[in-house]
Order: sequence, then structure tokens, then C-alpha cells
Amino acid sequence: MIHHHDAVSVIRAKRDGHALSDAQIDWVIDAYTRGDVADEQMSALAMAILLRGMNRDEISRWTAAMIASGERMNFSGLGRPTVDKHSTGGIGDKITLPLAPLVAACGAVVPQLAGRGLGYTGGTLDKMEAVPGWRAALSNDELLKQLDSVGAAICAAGAGLAPADKKLYALRDVTGTVESIALIASSIMSKKIAEGTSALVLDVKCGSGAFMTGAEDARELARTMVDLGNDSGVHTVALLTDMDTPLGLTAGNALEVRESVEVLAGGGPPDVVELTLELAREMLSAVGITGVDPADALADGRAMDVWRRMIAAQGGDPAAELPAATETEIVIAPESGVLSRLDALAVGIAAWRLGAGRQRQGEPVQPGSGVQWHAKVGDRVTKGQTLFTLHTDTPERIPASLAALNGSWEIGDSFEPRPLVMDRIG
Amino acid sequence: MIHHHDAVSVIRAKRDGHALSDAQIDWVIDAYTRGDVADEQMSALAMAILLRGMNRDEISRWTAAMIASGERMNFSGLGRPTVDKHSTGGIGDKITLPLAPLVAACGAVVPQLAGRGLGYTGGTLDKMEAVPGWRAALSNDELLKQLDSVGAAICAAGAGLAPADKKLYALRDVTGTVESIALIASSIMSKKIAEGTSALVLDVKCGSGAFMTGAEDARELARTMVDLGNDSGVHTVALLTDMDTPLGLTAGNALEVRESVEVLAGGGPPDVVELTLELAREMLSAVGITGVDPADALADGRAMDVWRRMIAAQGGDPAAELPAATETEIVIAPESGVLSRLDALAVGIAAWRLGAGRQRQGEPVQPGSGVQWHAKVGDRVTKGQTLFTLHTDTPERIPASLAALNGSWEIGDSFEPRPLVMDRIG
Repeated sequence: MIHHHDAVSVIRAKRDGHALSDAQIDWVIDAYTRGDVADEQMSALAMAILLRGMNRDEISRWTAAMIASGERMNFSGLGRPTVDKHSTGGIGDKITLPLAPLVAACGAVVPQLAGRGLGYTGGTLDKMEAVPGWRAALSNDELLKQLDSVGAAICAAGAGLAPADKKLYALRDVTGTVESIALIASSIMSKKIAEGTSALVLDVKCGSGAFMTGAEDARELARTMVDLGNDSGVHTVALLTDMDTPLGLTAGNALEVRESVEVLAGGGPPDVVELTLELAREMLSAVGITGVDPADALADGRAMDVWRRMIAAQGGDPAAELPAATETEIVIAPESGVLSRLDALAVGIAAWRLGAGRQRQGEPVQPGSGVQWHAKVGDRVTKGQTLFTLHTDTPERIPASLAALNGSWEIGDSFEPRPLVMDRIG
Repeated sequence: MIHHHDAVSVIRAKRDGHALSDAQIDWVIDAYTRGDVADEQMSALAMAILLRGMNRDEISRWTAAMIASGERMNFSGLGRPTVDKHSTGGIGDKITLPLAPLVAACGAVVPQLAGRGLGYTGGTLDKMEAVPGWRAALSNDELLKQLDSVGAAICAAGAGLAPADKKLYALRDVTGTVESIALIASSIMSKKIAEGTSALVLDVKCGSGAFMTGAEDARELARTMVDLGNDSGVHTVALLTDMDTPLGLTAGNALEVRESVEVLAGGGPPDVVELTLELAREMLSAVGITGVDPADALADGRAMDVWRRMIAAQGGDPAAELPAATETEIVIAPESGVLSRLDALAVGIAAWRLGAGRQRQGEPVQPGSGVQWHAKVGDRVTKGQTLFTLHTDTPERIPASLAALNGSWEIGDSFEPRPLVMDRIG
């Protein structure tokens, strides 16, 4: 009862537009983690935070309290600079896959702790699990060993990191309280700071296929996270990048691994290559590695070599054939012209409906499912050419997927080019 | 999962400042009552409603949906007009006790369905239960029979009336979402409309000892409830009354019964008499009973007669001695002058700490506990006279009660008189 009263006083303070004190924040996060603040109390508080906001001090303390709810990792024993990248998520965003081995090939250590997808944007672990034999779970010892020997690891974040965030995130998902810049920033940064990386580069997406559709919100989110990181001693930089149109030419797990391997082999879609190199340069610069051009490491096979060793270290077979879906369906260009629009969100929904994503936590995904598009925005297309290939193991889902794509693209005379990297904050 | 998604879409709509549709309101109230919308979802929605508000149509539909969640009573078989009174609650507010028998004595039928107290303001049922033998629970048949024979009943509202409200009220209490005019108005009015009274007089309190401390909020709450009642065919009027200073001279269960009996005997504190008569006139006028002066029914014992029959019909002994607390403590006036201030909230907390109220639902209350004050604001007091008497069965609580009173009253040269009835809305 005492706790209920305390929870109510914290909720009322935020509801009435006041800043929460350090003591209130520390108490409410700790009590929520222990179960002394009930879910219905935390969801009311989350809604009050979403509508009333938190100032920089509150967000910083909230993040610190979530970090304090669990363990902190420490990579200082490696004796080399560590740098991580986080993307707020977008359609076709497979950048982590070529980026982690590329940056390791250039001399930094990359502990890439990742998650699974929920909703339209796929999770990095789901993509990696399309590689036969590869396993996501590493113990802390295994992770340190792999970082020392290979220089990079993509693996599941342990349950011990920021457990308050894990619990709060699941709650926000069912209570309409996801879209708060304060709560998003503290959720992401609590995990990244607890992870113990010395530097962090954020890829904050902006557009129809992103969490933040507007540039102003995306910039505020980026600024908030950069401040949180730097205030906590993690050298943090953010790029604001376009997500109105999907990245690369594929959305789906094995499809995106294949495209990533093409990039590591020196090919791949130009936008994926551009963003991989931009982020690699930021990551290297953040840990003071200069005089190395990551483009060289793609061209001469060093990045591919780290990729193979990284896969093998986690039980995967880098030479194995990737899984393919049992069924495909194509969409044909009805006229000739320039692909003037391709909407990221629609492509994401189409891929998700085919089986590339999950509707509930814990569901399996189809590794081979997804959408391929055979032209980028700005490319010329010819009447009768294949515009999309849909891949799925469950062909009954194809009509729903086609319905999502319907109206999401246009063939015209011209298009408005838009820069991929819209801004840099740091 | 479907339901979760629907709940999230309703929450998001209100969160983003949109009006909820009739279908959204009907669905969310029904699904919450059935348990398909979770507590944490309803609390997020309640917070969004508190901060974003609801328009008149939404409040009306929300109320109708809560009424539809349970049974409706019907008093039309009595063949006489029914009228009920509801107070938003204040310190020393025992008006229901003399009022119900008084209005019945003047020819109307008064089905007074009441509740228990939680927090500083006592519940009408807790007060009535200080009468030896009296029982609060009546079946619908017993209630109808008593209304027919006695003309008045004060009893517990059945669990079948607006169960959605019951569940939502308990949730709001622990999630900081009580203070929403939309939610307060729909909570009160759903029960009163489901109860089936043909007319209703509201006593909306305003001041330090009330739910609504400001006159503007209280007036908006009154206006909202009056509209809800009249829109539903219940003739509804509201008085806005002062609750900066407590009503009468007592706060506590048996203490307030004693004061009520004094009023029924033609005596009692002038403010309690004034408010009882004002509300009685409004109630009689609301059901078209004219040419009867309720002051006469107090003076000639008709109201007392109904009171005795009402008590006896529910197993109580109207002649029995009322319970008294085992311990008393007095506070002495330190100087002579005019009692210029006596704060209602402080007196409420003092009485509650002595054992007159409860901290948790289901706790027993001490029938004899409470606070008596021996002067009203505006009265002259003499140095050395008794100013307060504290009554309790648990003397260890006396220091905390004295601490609540400390600084809550002043003796000066003069005072600012304030009208008891501040406004009438209807």
C-alpha cells in the first residue's frame, strides 16, 4: 500500500507536468523491476511521460536507473577500442551485417548486441539465423573470446542487461506508449551503455518505413540519444538517414544476408554500399582510427574474411547455401518509365505478410520469405519486366502481400532525388 | 492479440487528441469488463483521457456503455416520484442522513444507494453502520418494499449496477487517474442513472476538503453531470457548495449520526440545517412536489418518524445508544477572539487518523472515533475553552491526529463570511 501511494505520487507529479526528481525516478524503476510498482501503474506513468515529456536531466536519470537495474559489461580487458552501431530500424536495413566485419577488418572491435524483430522491420538476429548453423546466444566469456580473436560478433543481448527496459518495452508495446522520444531514447541507450562499448554510432531513420516519420522528431531523438551517450562517457554520433524508400533491393531474412554478402564481395546495391561506408567511417573516426579507407577493405576481401570467421565462430557455415522459400510470385511493370516512388512501409508490410516477420513475440519467422524489388527509385523500367518477386513458404499469404504493395509504387517521367544521409548529429 | 491491437488503436486515438467513436467506446468498456482489455491498457487510456479530455458526446457514450455493463433498476412500479441526492464528498458531510427521511416525509420516495468511504471523506454506509443492528445490504425486493412502506432507504448499491465503473474506479485509484472531470462525472452518473431514479440533486463540493478544490473545476463537473442526467431522462440539478471549512461540528461515524438526529429533532448546527433544507427543496421541486415546507417536517417530528422507521426496517434500533470511543483528548483555545479559519482537509485527515476512516478497501472503521469542534468559523471563543475533542479507540494515533490539526485553524479579530451554497446549476 505504501508503494501504491508512492507510485501514485510519482504518476501524479508527471501527469501534472512536473519534472520527476532523481529519487522518484530511481525508486519507480527499481520498484517496477521488483514488481512493487504494478504494470497498470507503469503504463499510466508511461502515458503521462509520453504526453508531458521529460527534460534532459530526467531522461538521463531514467536511463541510468534502467542501466542500474541489471549488469554492466566491460570490454576494457581487450585493450582495443570497441565501437557499436545502432539503427532505429527500417525496411531492408541489413547494414549491420556487412558493417560489423568491415569495421573489425579496419582495426576496431565491434561487439554488436542485437535483437529480434517485432512488426514490419526485421531483426538482425532473425537475418543472421538464416545462415545454416549460426547461433545467436553467446556467453559473456564466449563473446570476449570471439571479439579478441575475430574482432567482431553479432549476438543476442543477454537478459541481464537493463531488465527494467525489457519489461517496460513489452508493456509499452500493448499500451500505446511506444512513441515517446524520452522513452525510446532511454530504452535504446540503456542497453547500449550497459553493454560497455566505448563508442557508438547511431543510424536514426526518418520516413514512411521508420519509427519516426518526420525529420524534426527524428532529429530530436538523435540529439537526445547523442547527449545521453556522451553524458555517460560513450563517444556517440548519429546520422539521420532516409527511410521513405527501402534500403537495397531486398526485405527478408535470407534475401538480406545474400545482399550483404554481395556488398562484402565488393558489389551490392549502391545505397547499401554508401551507407555501410559512411557508418564505417563514423565508427572508425569515433575510436580514433585514421588513415584506413573502409572501401579498400571491401574491395580486397578483408571484410569478407572477417565475416566468414565471425559466422564460423558462432557455429555457422559461411559456404552453405542459404534457405530459399518454396513459392514465388512476380509483379510485372505495366508500362515503361522511371520508378518514381517506392514506399518503404508498404514493402515492409508485404514482406511481413509473406512470413519474413512475426506478429507475436516468440513466433518463428520464415528464413526464405520476403520481397525483392528489381529497380531502385530513379531507375528506368521497361513495360513487361519483373518489378517485384515475392518469396514465401505459405502461398496463401500472397494476395495480402500484393494488396500491401498495391499503390505503393509509381512509374513516371522523373523523380525527386533525396540524399540518403540527411544530417549528422554529434 | 486482436484485442490487444484494438485496445492499442483506441489508446492511440485518445493519446493523439482525437474523439473516440461510439463503437470504440462501446467496445473498450465491454472488453474491459470481460477482461479482454487488460488493466495496464485501461490505465494508459484513463491517463490519456485525463490529459486529453472527452467531449460531451464521448462522455455521454462512455456513461451509457458503463450503464450497459450491468443491470438497471426500475422504480416505476411504486407509482410515486423517486428522487436521489449525491454529494461529491466532503468533511463532516452527513447531510444524506437527515435529508432522506425528511424528503420522504414530504411525499417523495428516496432510494438513497450509497457507498463506503475510502480516504478522508467518510462513507454514508460507514456512518449508518454506527447505528446498532442496522444493515446496509438490501435485496432489490427488500428495497422496493421498504420504499413503498417507509418512503426512504439508505442502502448499499448492488454489485450488479455498472460493474465496469466498479472495476475502473479501483484501477483509477492506484494509477493517478482519479482527477478527470470526464471520468468522475461518468462514474457517478452511470451508477445514478442505472439505479433508475426519476430525479437527482447533486451536491458538488468545492474547497480544501473536497475533491475539486477550485470553483471552476467544480462548476464544470456539475455542468457535465447535469447534462448527462438530463440527456438520460433523469431530471438533474446541482448545487455548488462550500467545503473550505467542514460541515457541522463533527467528523466521524457515530458522532455524525448523533448530529443528524439533532437536526431531525429540530436542532443541530445551522449550516447542516441550511444545507439539508436547501437540498430538500431542490429534491421536492425536481419531482414536482410544491406547497410543502420541509422546515415544518423537521419542526413537527415527521422527518424523525421516517428516520426511525427507516432504521428499524433495516434491523437497526433507533433508540439504542450510539457507540462511543474509549479515549478522548481535548485541544484548548490559547487565546480569546473569533475563530477565523478551520480547514476542512486538516479536520478530515485528523478524523481519519483517529480511526474514523480506512486506508484500504475492506478495513473496518472505528464507529466512535472522530473529531468534534466546539466552535464554527465566525464564532467567538474564549481563552481556555475546549476547541476540539478527539475521540478514538487507539490513543497511540492521537499525536498524528493533533499534528494534522496543527496550523489548520486560527483565532483572529474577524473572518470573511462565505456563502454555503455558492451556485445552482440546472
